[in-house]
Amino acid sequence: MTKNTTHKIVTFGEVMMRLCPPDYRYISQTESVNIFYGGTEANVAIGLANLGCDVTHVTALPNDFTGAAVLGYLKQNDVRTQFITRNNHPLGLYFMEEGVVHKSGRIAYNRLHGAFAHINPKDFDWNEILEGASWFHWTGITPGISLQAYTALKEALKVCNEKNITVSTDPVYRTNLWNYGESAIPILNELVNMSTIFIGGPDEINMLLGTSYNASDFKESACDIMDKYTNLKAVINKTRSAKNATWQKIRSMVWTGKELFTSDEVEITHIIDRIGTGDAFAVGLIYGMLHYDWSKTLATANACCALKHVIPGDASLVTEEQLNNAVTSGLKGRLIR
Amino acid sequence: MTKNTTHKIVTFGEVMMRLCPPDYRYISQTESVNIFYGGTEANVAIGLANLGCDVTHVTALPNDFTGAAVLGYLKQNDVRTQFITRNNHPLGLYFMEEGVVHKSGRIAYNRLHGAFAHINPKDFDWNEILEGASWFHWTGITPGISLQAYTALKEALKVCNEKNITVSTDPVYRTNLWNYGESAIPILNELVNMSTIFIGGPDEINMLLGTSYNASDFKESACDIMDKYTNLKAVINKTRSAKNATWQKIRSMVWTGKELFTSDEVEITHIIDRIGTGDAFAVGLIYGMLHYDWSKTLATANACCALKHVIPGDASLVTEEQLNNAVTSGLKGRLIR
Amino acid sequence: MTKNTTHKIVTFGEVMMRLCPPDYRYISQTESVNIFYGGTEANVAIGLANLGCDVTHVTALPNDFTGAAVLGYLKQNDVRTQFITRNNHPLGLYFMEEGVVHKSGRIAYNRLHGAFAHINPKDFDWNEILEGASWFHWTGITPGISLQAYTALKEALKVCNEKNITVSTDPVYRTNLWNYGESAIPILNELVNMSTIFIGGPDEINMLLGTSYNASDFKESACDIMDKYTNLKAVINKTRSAKNATWQKIRSMVWTGKELFTSDEVEITHIIDRIGTGDAFAVGLIYGMLHYDWSKTLATANACCALKHVIPGDASLVTEEQLNNAVTSGLKGRLIR
Amino acid sequence: MTKNTTHKIVTFGEVMMRLCPPDYRYISQTESVNIFYGGTEANVAIGLANLGCDVTHVTALPNDFTGAAVLGYLKQNDVRTQFITRNNHPLGLYFMEEGVVHKSGRIAYNRLHGAFAHINPKDFDWNEILEGASWFHWTGITPGISLQAYTALKEALKVCNEKNITVSTDPVYRTNLWNYGESAIPILNELVNMSTIFIGGPDEINMLLGTSYNASDFKESACDIMDKYTNLKAVINKTRSAKNATWQKIRSMVWTGKELFTSDEVEITHIIDRIGTGDAFAVGLIYGMLHYDWSKTLATANACCALKHVIPGDASLVTEEQLNNAVTSGLKGRLIR
Amino acid sequence: MTKNTTHKIVTFGEVMMRLCPPDYRYISQTESVNIFYGGTEANVAIGLANLGCDVTHVTALPNDFTGAAVLGYLKQNDVRTQFITRNNHPLGLYFMEEGVVHKSGRIAYNRLHGAFAHINPKDFDWNEILEGASWFHWTGITPGISLQAYTALKEALKVCNEKNITVSTDPVYRTNLWNYGESAIPILNELVNMSTIFIGGPDEINMLLGTSYNASDFKESACDIMDKYTNLKAVINKTRSAKNATWQKIRSMVWTGKELFTSDEVEITHIIDRIGTGDAFAVGLIYGMLHYDWSKTLATANACCALKHVIPGDASLVTEEQLNNAVTSGLKGRLIR
Amino acid sequence: MTKNTTHKIVTFGEVMMRLCPPDYRYISQTESVNIFYGGTEANVAIGLANLGCDVTHVTALPNDFTGAAVLGYLKQNDVRTQFITRNNHPLGLYFMEEGVVHKSGRIAYNRLHGAFAHINPKDFDWNEILEGASWFHWTGITPGISLQAYTALKEALKVCNEKNITVSTDPVYRTNLWNYGESAIPILNELVNMSTIFIGGPDEINMLLGTSYNASDFKESACDIMDKYTNLKAVINKTRSAKNATWQKIRSMVWTGKELFTSDEVEITHIIDRIGTGDAFAVGLIYGMLHYDWSKTLATANACCALKHVIPGDASLVTEEQLNNAVTSGLKGRLIR
Repeated sequence: MTKNTTHKIVTFGEVMMRLCPPDYRYISQTESVNIFYGGTEANVAIGLANLGCDVTHVTALPNDFTGAAVLGYLKQNDVRTQFITRNNHPLGLYFMEEGVVHKSGRIAYNRLHGAFAHINPKDFDWNEILEGASWFHWTGITPGISLQAYTALKEALKVCNEKNITVSTDPVYRTNLWNYGESAIPILNELVNMSTIFIGGPDEINMLLGTSYNASDFKESACDIMDKYTNLKAVINKTRSAKNATWQKIRSMVWTGKELFTSDEVEITHIIDRIGTGDAFAVGLIYGMLHYDWSKTLATANACCALKHVIPGDASLVTEEQLNNAVTSGLKGRLIR
Repeated sequence: MTKNTTHKIVTFGEVMMRLCPPDYRYISQTESVNIFYGGTEANVAIGLANLGCDVTHVTALPNDFTGAAVLGYLKQNDVRTQFITRNNHPLGLYFMEEGVVHKSGRIAYNRLHGAFAHINPKDFDWNEILEGASWFHWTGITPGISLQAYTALKEALKVCNEKNITVSTDPVYRTNLWNYGESAIPILNELVNMSTIFIGGPDEINMLLGTSYNASDFKESACDIMDKYTNLKAVINKTRSAKNATWQKIRSMVWTGKELFTSDEVEITHIIDRIGTGDAFAVGLIYGMLHYDWSKTLATANACCALKHVIPGDASLVTEEQLNNAVTSGLKGRLIR
Repeated sequence: MTKNTTHKIVTFGEVMMRLCPPDYRYISQTESVNIFYGGTEANVAIGLANLGCDVTHVTALPNDFTGAAVLGYLKQNDVRTQFITRNNHPLGLYFMEEGVVHKSGRIAYNRLHGAFAHINPKDFDWNEILEGASWFHWTGITPGISLQAYTALKEALKVCNEKNITVSTDPVYRTNLWNYGESAIPILNELVNMSTIFIGGPDEINMLLGTSYNASDFKESACDIMDKYTNLKAVINKTRSAKNATWQKIRSMVWTGKELFTSDEVEITHIIDRIGTGDAFAVGLIYGMLHYDWSKTLATANACCALKHVIPGDASLVTEEQLNNAVTSGLKGRLIR
Repeated sequence: MTKNTTHKIVTFGEVMMRLCPPDYRYISQTESVNIFYGGTEANVAIGLANLGCDVTHVTALPNDFTGAAVLGYLKQNDVRTQFITRNNHPLGLYFMEEGVVHKSGRIAYNRLHGAFAHINPKDFDWNEILEGASWFHWTGITPGISLQAYTALKEALKVCNEKNITVSTDPVYRTNLWNYGESAIPILNELVNMSTIFIGGPDEINMLLGTSYNASDFKESACDIMDKYTNLKAVINKTRSAKNATWQKIRSMVWTGKELFTSDEVEITHIIDRIGTGDAFAVGLIYGMLHYDWSKTLATANACCALKHVIPGDASLVTEEQLNNAVTSGLKGRLIR
Repeated sequence: MTKNTTHKIVTFGEVMMRLCPPDYRYISQTESVNIFYGGTEANVAIGLANLGCDVTHVTALPNDFTGAAVLGYLKQNDVRTQFITRNNHPLGLYFMEEGVVHKSGRIAYNRLHGAFAHINPKDFDWNEILEGASWFHWTGITPGISLQAYTALKEALKVCNEKNITVSTDPVYRTNLWNYGESAIPILNELVNMSTIFIGGPDEINMLLGTSYNASDFKESACDIMDKYTNLKAVINKTRSAKNATWQKIRSMVWTGKELFTSDEVEITHIIDRIGTGDAFAVGLIYGMLHYDWSKTLATANACCALKHVIPGDASLVTEEQLNNAVTSGLKGRLIR
Repeated sequence: MTKNTTHKIVTFGEVMMRLCPPDYRYISQTESVNIFYGGTEANVAIGLANLGCDVTHVTALPNDFTGAAVLGYLKQNDVRTQFITRNNHPLGLYFMEEGVVHKSGRIAYNRLHGAFAHINPKDFDWNEILEGASWFHWTGITPGISLQAYTALKEALKVCNEKNITVSTDPVYRTNLWNYGESAIPILNELVNMSTIFIGGPDEINMLLGTSYNASDFKESACDIMDKYTNLKAVINKTRSAKNATWQKIRSMVWTGKELFTSDEVEITHIIDRIGTGDAFAVGLIYGMLHYDWSKTLATANACCALKHVIPGDASLVTEEQLNNAVTSGLKGRLIR
């Protein structure tokens, strides 16, 4: 059970509780709700840890039994937790009625006054945290939660840049965040400029650069952002085509600045849990970039993403063996006795 | 949370308990059964109430804690219950092993000696109940249960006709009813003749008129019945094409006496609960007729029906907002954050 | 099912979601949590409504599907909801690991930034709400949540006093509230002075008056507060003696200003859910005061409280028939066929 | 796994489904109900079969999947089912909100129009069924259900008397039965007169004979009924003293016509399921009478009854080994590794 | 409820417990596991018994409460159990994380030191067991478990051959068995040579004969093995084509030595439980061969197999009526009221 | 979240899965079983880790997903796992029907061919494992499982003795172990002689020394064994008096060689899970010895033991704060808001 310690990965972001009625019930129809813990960056951390990577997640948690439960969850999944702080604010959480076929999922958030929103940037010595790290991952959720979260993230990125650490980002923009008084777009641009791996496509690039690329203009848009932000070493996009909420296809592509690679399409015919599938894509992508060439990296990212669609909870629990088997056997789902 | 009080809708019929083993088990394989309350007319009432309509359901319930539970269920769903009577007969119910893919569902009824079968027609002052109402809905189930139920329904329809209230009907014929000594077909014809909106197609029309239209003869059969029953203002049909019990397509059409409108087809790829989908179609149809033109009405009825296929329980819980979003976004099931 | 409309009762306070792991698990040991809705004043409202009283609960709820679920819960329990407002803040909630035998229960609150804390006092026309009411009930929780909540409550009490409405209060003081800048004790004294029925004993009186009565000085302390707050017509106390968290005895007493009545002791040997038992006591008390003499009133309050200890959820669901049977049969729990 | 075939036992009576909300919920609070199958005579049959006896149960069941499930349940418990008939009437059933501590359980029956009520007495050739049998057990429930049930039972008892088969009876009188036009008391007297072992005490004897013995007059009342019905060989009574619905004590006694034996008291401090505990007493009693002297027989009956109080479901599942261990170890409940 | 006693069928093999996390969870994500009992030959026994056949299953079970539970399960399903032995070894079992879509199922076995592995061949008098039998079924699992199991099976086959009993076999080879010191291939060949109905195709034939037929060479391979093992009267194969673990197609074919029959393809679009589907195919096949011509036999085998894909648990619970309905209605899954 | 690193504790022993039917069902009555992981030494490890101690557990686990789940469980509970080995044998496990009131629990073990039984003593470098450790805990279970387990344990104790590490032992003797050819008593004596803290009383001492002390001869028996095994620094005993399986009292006492301390009695009136309560006593004892005087140590051990009786699962999850609160508040179970 030796860890792959060649690469030390650090992630930073909120961990929330997700509360879902079982069996696609409305919340008004249920006596109980299933609970899962997750958050986009923590999901990436857990997914990579389950693949055997050495991962440290940094966050703030409540100083009560709900915070203790999250801590136990991270430890169970082999994520290092020694830099996590605790405070007296409640656990961020959201209720979700899951979508299925034609029914859209609905979410009710309760995260803007939680432990992570009240994180104290001074509690984190990023030089110590990032000592020896080779990879840092962040998303556009974190700077949208609160000024403190943005401040702490920016500090982290500065140290990453000083230490030449690879920085991957999924610079997603969520309209229900960013209500602490700062504008999203300038901040996201600032932070992307401090990053090296961009996970996104025309939509995200248009949002950042104010351009208007079509969905099919992946290469053009990727060239554009790599021209603008010269730290970027690669732009990777995942596209999704949905028959409905339960039946979808994914495909991925990378622009390396020189070459374009495009994966095969993977069809997911019976989705069980869509939450965290983008994060699982990032997991497969980072794992692939640390081990494989671009072609196998995309296949690995797709497989990890596809498998997450049928795993309950927010994070990929796929083992290295499962992921490799899935990739090499063409995702047929054959029983292993 | 203001009610749409322009239109007051009244429904009349039995509310039963449905008892289903979980996870497609045989009843011999289960320690517990899920319970749902429903009945075709009550399902229409609840569906419309959840869309914000002012709906009163009339029925009879046991004078015990099972009847109290049904009453609470109706109130929870905003249905007015002040005309419901109670008696000392048990709650009608049925066991159901749900169908899935190639497996046919099985039903075992226990309803012929229940509270609704023993309803007392004299307990209902339909002039009071229907005061100010603009719509009344009934189905062919009710007059098949008992003489008392038939008598009460006929009284209601007489008052509807006097008051010029729109009367919609789904004149379904069930072979396992009608064992109280009266013949189904004459009674159903008599009651359809007192109605204005006919939900059904060649099958139902053949049953009533003794004709032999093909499934494709919708318009012809609709003309025929509108000729015979001149109160009818429209005939609306929903057709269903089944790959199997879990994967089906629906389409709907209306003959207004002058024009034929046909909807797009909606494909439901992963059915979760088929019970009450016809009732949800009626919900969308009535709601549509109260708000929209025929084209949008059919789209709304289809959407309401499609959404019910993935909602556990007998009734549509879809809100006005969900239904409108589904119609306008093309039923893609996109997550709403 | 006619309502007892002689007395119209109004309550005001937050409704929260309670989230409890099943089977006395730690939250770290569970995949799902049971959910219940409750709040001390809403519990009183529901308990009285289930006894057939005409009750209106006033609160603020989120404008999302969680708020809709609470609304359905209140309606299911026959509570009038027409004065409830909705806003864009989340549902107040708390996690609870239930206590049992020697294990203390633990609670983690998330209520200080919720819909009720952000209630707008201007949204409530108390003259309209209290029109025709004969009883109003409040507790010390409400003014501790936020300035808005305190303000709205004070407005209500003013109108109550103008309209000569009986005002009962359980002026509980919670240390984890009152963090909006006002001091608890002066406010609670101010509001108790506007009330007529005081539910509490030496502990609460010491807290308010700064006295130091012993637990056995019920009559003396009651005299003292009735001297000070001359609106008070009666002081009722419930004492609890605990073998442990699962096995307890309760007893109650009233000082009417003239007479002292003391109930028998009730021993509850296998407690199932202690939440809301104080509220159920208030339910039985108010119901008793509206129907009985003091002796039977205390017996009824005890019975209602004792029964709540074995009913899951926050509110008493006891029917008038069950409560009367329990009182007259000596709380033996005999099966009713 | 050889059967104890020395004694062949036959029982006759309805098997119903019991539907109980979990965790002491009200039915209005639950999404699902636990289901159990039972009926007083079938419970005796199953209890004896689990002790290794050769038992045949005679009843009528619906000709659908619910009847098939009951049949499977009886077979699983080693009860012979070859004389069970099937018809087109529904399965008898009842809902039950379980009692606990001070809360009385509530029952809502649905059994008067079921398969057993419509049993056809001509379907049973009692000479064949009772061929080689040494024991027959009946209760006062069966003749109260319908004329057909009474007729079939009387036929069975006639054959028992001809064949000199021991006939035990628990002649319970239920007010919610006997609505088919016959009077209970004459019929119960007639049937007790055809029996040899009377399970009951002053209450049942007063009911039958119109006497007014006190609870403490066991011996006197037993003498009286044995004088009147000279077939009786023994009168056995179980007394129960209840602290509440969850904490009770039982004791038993027998009058043999010559001697009085009284057992020790057994205290059951945490009752889990009281349904069928009287039937389990009969199981231990019959088993004891077939194997032991009166003193050990009463101890065995008490132990079987006590154990059933903590076994979910209607019937005793106690094995011969468990029962013997419990009797010899003084019911301490010590773990067996 | 008369048994079809024309044909008496005997099966022999291990019955294990299957332990599966619910809802496609990883075992690390679950508080509880669903339990099912099964084993390939017992599944065939149960499936045939549920179709009304007279079936006896022979096995060894632990002499504890787990063994008792298995015994009850077999009896509940109408399988005769009188020849089952008990010993002091534990119940064989396996954990399974179910596969779904792209996710492969995983199995962890614990069967090699269980009650069946320690079966005593001398405990079985096959002349008595097989008296009057017309069919015996075995699979390649049994001889792979232990020398004792192999020995007992060989004894059984000898008696079958002496008594001219039809012997069907599914000679599957599992790499995780056969670790008791004997080679699989010679033993499987020896046992196939004692059989008359071969269920398998090119894969199994290549394994046995060392040939290298392609998947499409069914007839050629079947001819080959029938040439070699002249007892064989028919070779039946089921082919499966998998879109993924949840969506598959099956087809079947038979070579009778003279004629080739090929069935239609059946598409199973939403698989619920794949375990035991091959056994259900054998059930339909044997049932068909006992009642129908080859064409209807293959259709029946396909239907039985297809239905098992949506039935939880290891064995087909399909009744004769359900199976016939499914075959004649084209597997549409239409609801039966 | 700083660890108490003053004391490093090491434990060694099997971790099994426990499988229990819910709600006191027989295994024949349940569709699912609750799963817990535990083992006496691992329970001690987890209990101490949850109190903030630095604990390392040493064991062997299967090299499959069941082993991975156990590993995650240990990590979630903050136990260090770096010395755990993996092999190809299955996870040890046991089924348990829980005892309650008069019903004895039953256990069916499957552990004698598992991963821990096949542990390889050479895989453990005890000098490395025990480096810096101050405490080692073992029980009589481990040497009873297999020769390998005994060998590895003896190696560990040798190193403990060399390093002067405190060695506590609960030298329990289980008759269902010790079937690998060695005699229990000599080995247990040998290993106790290598220990310093003896947890046990007259029963265990009689077993080891062949004496016949009465239950009341604690001090005498303790003197005797301390005379014999001069490494022993203290003998601590916990006595249990059982009203039944659900209601018990515990008391504890220590003989230090010089002084006798006896605790108060703790009464546990509603036991929820008795498994691991002895281990929880050891947890409180070790924690107490590391922090307190003997009097408070016994109180702490009792409290930890009492609390475990109401915590589901095998290990104490009590936090340092909970334990201290319980001790100082007299185990009243008062709710903490």
